Amino acid sequence: MNKGNLLTYRPDIKVVDATVRDGGLVNNFFFSDEFIKSLYEANCKAGVEYMEFGYKADKDIFDEKEFGKWKFCKDQDILDIIGEKGDTKISVMADVGRCNYKRDIVNKADSPIDLVRVATYINTIPAAIEMIEDAHNKGYETTCNIMAISNAKESEIDIALDLLGKSCVDGIYIVDSYGSMFPEEIRKLSETYLEAAEKYGKYIGIHCHNNIQLAFANTIEACAAGVSYLDGTMCGMGRGAGNCYLELLLNFLKNPKYNIYPVYKFIEEHMVLLLENPDVLWGYDLPYAITGYLNQHPRTAIAATSEKRKDYVNFYNELIEKD
Amino acid sequence: MNKGNLLTYRPDIKVVDATVRDGGLVNNFFFSDEFIKSLYEANCKAGVEYMEFGYKADKDIFDEKEFGKWKFCKDQDILDIIGEKGDTKISVMADVGRCNYKRDIVNKADSPIDLVRVATYINTIPAAIEMIEDAHNKGYETTCNIMAISNAKESEIDIALDLLGKSCVDGIYIVDSYGSMFPEEIRKLSETYLEAAEKYGKYIGIHCHNNIQLAFANTIEACAAGVSYLDGTMCGMGRGAGNCYLELLLNFLKNPKYNIYPVYKFIEEHMVLLLENPDVLWGYDLPYAITGYLNQHPRTAIAATSEKRKDYVNFYNELIEKD
Repeated sequence: MNKGNLLTYRPDIKVVDATVRDGGLVNNFFFSDEFIKSLYEANCKAGVEYMEFGYKADKDIFDEKEFGKWKFCKDQDILDIIGEKGDTKISVMADVGRCNYKRDIVNKADSPIDLVRVATYINTIPAAIEMIEDAHNKGYETTCNIMAISNAKESEIDIALDLLGKSCVDGIYIVDSYGSMFPEEIRKLSETYLEAAEKYGKYIGIHCHNNIQLAFANTIEACAAGVSYLDGTMCGMGRGAGNCYLELLLNFLKNPKYNIYPVYKFIEEHMVLLLENPDVLWGYDLPYAITGYLNQHPRTAIAATSEKRKDYVNFYNELIEKD
Repeated sequence: MNKGNLLTYRPDIKVVDATVRDGGLVNNFFFSDEFIKSLYEANCKAGVEYMEFGYKADKDIFDEKEFGKWKFCKDQDILDIIGEKGDTKISVMADVGRCNYKRDIVNKADSPIDLVRVATYINTIPAAIEMIEDAHNKGYETTCNIMAISNAKESEIDIALDLLGKSCVDGIYIVDSYGSMFPEEIRKLSETYLEAAEKYGKYIGIHCHNNIQLAFANTIEACAAGVSYLDGTMCGMGRGAGNCYLELLLNFLKNPKYNIYPVYKFIEEHMVLLLENPDVLWGYDLPYAITGYLNQHPRTAIAATSEKRKDYVNFYNELIEKD
């Protein structure tokens, strides 16, 4: 395990751009083709190792008319956009229980996708492992992203890591879905995950939310502890308070292969318009800080900000009463 | 020195609300009397230990017509607003070279002010110490806030801490003026300051800026290292990218004396209006991230955001050329 310092870099680090996948939760995946194409080009030029194009959602569960195509990430849609593949590998996310993976995930040899990330809550790990085995056997790299980890007990985490350690998964992700964790908690959790990783020969990744303005801080804390797959999004775009800012992350990492110019260019050409769109909301706001502080799902805060509620005292009281 | 953990609290911690002083840099200190009065009441009810009312600026240097009264913080203006003093102590900031302290800082016995914070760059420490001695002899608590510390050499910091250690100052502040420091740098700097603090019987404080979204993270990192005076502002209001969010800080600290309700109430009644005012700009934005990353004064980023510039590639190139 490498730890690095502020002047060197770690060759084991991989950056995963999750702008479309997590950002799609904000605009129902209605990105223009031009946006996706430009983002892929920007990531290739910037040296970003992976770009996640979206979810492999089951069209029998989600109506294709209600979502943009990146909710479903059909292989042909990806190929139509990118033309030839560049250096950035392609990732998709598959949710336990919401992906018909036997039908919709074909053999890697016939797909532009490189990495399948299986998202699960801690109580559905066995189902996640089935999906991971399927993807692995089809030839994909795989990760298991255990969501809402701030709500799991230490004993549950130990069991989950043991199950995953013995599986064929390549990497295991720490996911602070509620954006409620502090760097010292991330440090301890990273050490727990890394212990399993070393034992079983896996890598560890991290995906953070910015409810209490700690997404970037938690990502670099995990990185310093030895976590090597780091998620970020352009301008922090993502559900609710959003994610770790990819531009901050690339500036922090010292690997000379990263080039920040294509990122700034993409932001000025594409993200500025999204940031000015009143119907596409993300980023730090007090209601998200409150759900983060309370270690709750941000759905109430998303509703409050979309209704432009400013009665924060009432909002806080409502959430406390629900506990 | 206390270090605490996430479930206990440290009685040595003092929170300093710097909303008016640092936020005044955004609106030239034109706050309504109602705003200041409500803020003082909110801080008293919330259990915040200090509220900084503004600067003690020299009216021979700054035109009183161009600034609100909190640029000058006359004793009578403070008294007129607060009526009777509550539990929250009153602080003002005095800049080296921009404060006629012999004239404008009267004896503590005749003033509502408790704490005089002397702001200095590292090359004007002797002048700062003269001001500190004057304030100390008049009966005030004092701190020395060494600004732009990210640009100072370790050897300079050692000399500064030794000079201040031998002075009558009560506390010494780490000030990340450019918002460019990472938590691991803050940790090391905190340890250096705390070593001097223990030797000389001082306390250490911290004041952070949010250029790369680390103001809160750096504040709690310093806190974990043993730093005890923590600056925050309502909704992070402050120059450029702003400061550590007071509401996040109070939620993080576990001292039962703190009460978050008056803070949420103040935000909904007063800060929401300021946040919606297009002429009063603060908070994270890419130009601030760029000056922070480059360890530069944010003045170029302040100009860029006030001009609503979105040509980030050009902006970045301009800053690099200046180096």
